[in-house]
Amino acid sequence: KVDGQRLWDSLMQMARVGPGVAGGNNRQTLTDADAEGRALFRRWCEDAGMTMGLDRMGNMFMRHEGAEPDLDPVYIGSHLDTQPTGGKFDGVLGVLAGLEAIRSIRDMGIVTRRPIVVVNWTNEEGTRFAPAMLASGVFAGVHDEDYANSREDAEGRRFGDELDRIGWRGKEVPGDRRIHAMFEYHIEQGPILEAEGKQIGVVTHGQGLWWLQVTLTGKDAHTGSTPMSMRVNAGLGMARIIEAVHRIAMDHQPDAVGAVGQANVWPNSRNVIPGRAVFTIDIRSPDLGKLTSMRSRIEAEAADIAHELGLGIEIEPVGHFDPVEFDPGLVRLVRAAAERLGYSHRDIVSGAGHDACWINRVAPTVMIMCPCVDGLSHNEAEEISPEWAKAGADVLLHAVLDAAEV
Amino acid sequence: KVDGQRLWDSLMQMARVGPGVAGGNNRQTLTDADAEGRALFRRWCEDAGMTMGLDRMGNMFMRHEGAEPDLDPVYIGSHLDTQPTGGKFDGVLGVLAGLEAIRSIRDMGIVTRRPIVVVNWTNEEGTRFAPAMLASGVFAGVHDEDYANSREDAEGRRFGDELDRIGWRGKEVPGDRRIHAMFEYHIEQGPILEAEGKQIGVVTHGQGLWWLQVTLTGKDAHTGSTPMSMRVNAGLGMARIIEAVHRIAMDHQPDAVGAVGQANVWPNSRNVIPGRAVFTIDIRSPDLGKLTSMRSRIEAEAADIAHELGLGIEIEPVGHFDPVEFDPGLVRLVRAAAERLGYSHRDIVSGAGHDACWINRVAPTVMIMCPCVDGLSHNEAEEISPEWAKAGADVLLHAVLDAAEV
Ligand SMILES: NC(=O)NCCC(=O)O
Ligand SMILES: NC(=O)NCCC(=O)O
Repeated sequence: KVDGQRLWDSLMQMARVGPGVAGGNNRQTLTDADAEGRALFRRWCEDAGMTMGLDRMGNMFMRHEGAEPDLDPVYIGSHLDTQPTGGKFDGVLGVLAGLEAIRSIRDMGIVTRRPIVVVNWTNEEGTRFAPAMLASGVFAGVHDEDYANSREDAEGRRFGDELDRIGWRGKEVPGDRRIHAMFEYHIEQGPILEAEGKQIGVVTHGQGLWWLQVTLTGKDAHTGSTPMSMRVNAGLGMARIIEAVHRIAMDHQPDAVGAVGQANVWPNSRNVIPGRAVFTIDIRSPDLGKLTSMRSRIEAEAADIAHELGLGIEIEPVGHFDPVEFDPGLVRLVRAAAERLGYSHRDIVSGAGHDACWINRVAPTVMIMCPCVDGLSHNEAEEISPEWAKAGADVLLHAVLDAAEV
Repeated sequence: KVDGQRLWDSLMQMARVGPGVAGGNNRQTLTDADAEGRALFRRWCEDAGMTMGLDRMGNMFMRHEGAEPDLDPVYIGSHLDTQPTGGKFDGVLGVLAGLEAIRSIRDMGIVTRRPIVVVNWTNEEGTRFAPAMLASGVFAGVHDEDYANSREDAEGRRFGDELDRIGWRGKEVPGDRRIHAMFEYHIEQGPILEAEGKQIGVVTHGQGLWWLQVTLTGKDAHTGSTPMSMRVNAGLGMARIIEAVHRIAMDHQPDAVGAVGQANVWPNSRNVIPGRAVFTIDIRSPDLGKLTSMRSRIEAEAADIAHELGLGIEIEPVGHFDPVEFDPGLVRLVRAAAERLGYSHRDIVSGAGHDACWINRVAPTVMIMCPCVDGLSHNEAEEISPEWAKAGADVLLHAVLDAAEV
């Protein structure tokens, strides 16, 4: 088993890098805080005898050697970047539990045939640069490097420029690695495991997603002196589409969600009817049919709403993945490890997107989940217990040792 | 009559201070650009023999002496500040037409018994610091100075600090002046005069207004993994309230308008259900009963919407004025001047708020309006013709000469 206290201490130490305003973290991708978190992780790994590989997307590959270095390694990966008002565990738990697995393996003097590589994937959150899971997507061949480098944040800074700026661009060609199996350990970010009192989620599937960025174009005008009949109000169009997204998601219950998280109007002045609105619709389902049906209904209704209000409308997909089925063999392996260790478990579908969803396209992949308090994530108050963190890390260790062949 | 070309040249020269991005202006109150515009106006006035008074709110009083300096002066006032994406005429026309009136009076060698004072009122627009017409409101005793000084912009900078920073705080106690009459000349900002082919609007009344700033508090949470039933979505609440404001304004037709111009969600991330939304409702009517009825219906519906979604709600009034009736004697005087000059005219109600609305509480006040293209204002494309600008300035000159007693 792993050293739960050491894992927890590392989590708390990493949480001091890029602190939030309410006890959580703001360590957004490719910021100075991200660079500082990367350096800390690298130092810890090197202290544990690992060596670093770094690709052109800034993905960090920390290698623990195996008895047979030529065999394809087993990977453990997640992400160290956070939401602007993010928690201390989303992503970080998976990376630091990977490190803890290596530390424990060394402590116990275990030697695996295969090397083990712990990965920090760049820009998983997708807040600063859409889409989410950008660099694991490049690794898996879903996006090309030019696309990734050209993605812009809200201030117009490009992903590629910011990666260069923080000094974390490597030379390795993304995707140029053979992967025997990849494991991602992550907090559930939903309420099911806690509600049912289960320690371990064995993740069999992941939801699919569309992010649809909508731009509505109306006409800036005075809120007081412009007659109601002459208004071309982009903010009103946005409001109606936000409501439509909610209603359409409710119509697709169960197994469907939808919301608008990012919403901006221009010029954003109290006495100006908004002439422009830009916002991103987030819809998800584990069922491809529902996902497709939601998207087409939303696009049709949004077009009707725009037409009725006289607004110009553009809809640009800025993120997408189909529903995922993880590797059945690895799913069985994780389930068996939980069983063997005596941890309560259940099969579960991931509600969030994860780097594992992309890597699953190029290598056998699976995820392990741990409960989180009230199912709350993407919130600084995100919380887990040290016992929960350790249970999943134990399962991770056992599953990885099986895959890496002791 | 005034020199229309000189007036137009001054308007175009002022428009070079704080240029916008699309041919208009961004000369928001108490910015460096505002300071530059003030200095230019001062220089022009001093070149025309006027002397400056400056009060503790930064209101600029440019005095042209009368034959009997002890008589209460006639005032001509409007504002030089603009919206973030504002036009070249909103406010500026009234200030520079006042200057042009003085220039013409000097050119013609006319001497009035009463002094004439041309005023630039600080922070009319209310975009950077709510409410609108802040400093004329202090002058009229509607707000106290502490309230004004403590108003904050979106970055948390205070009105008082910014006034000190740009160096335009005077020593004079606001309101400590006797006003015989005040005239404000302004673009209509609506479509009526142009549609009816009238050169002059004789403003008899002004709409009343409420600005209601709404803060909704929900819970930041993951857009993917949070079940629909567990969401407390502040963005959805905002959308429903925006729609309700529109519907309630439509229910009060005619003579009522309503919209939300400023709208923000937090943390404004694509995959986070907004935990907070802050937005300002703008409702107006020339009919006090309708204004009151709209406000109470909106507050009741907003409370219901918040309750249904489990959101916390706070509603803070950040701007208000009752419908205004301008001075009947001055209204007749303006109408007679337009008639005498042979300009087509009609009585009109101001859709926007103006400094004149506050000054009307402490002195006889009236407004003159000129048409604007497509009724468009609070938009960089705001446009008027030089002929329209001159016609209203001629009426202003004649009415002011009558009031100042030649
Ligand atoms: N795990 C996680 O929060 N990923 C961000 C991508 C998503 O929105 O699902
Ligand atoms: N004239 C004008 O645009 N004033 C700003 C205050 C308002 O919103 O009416």
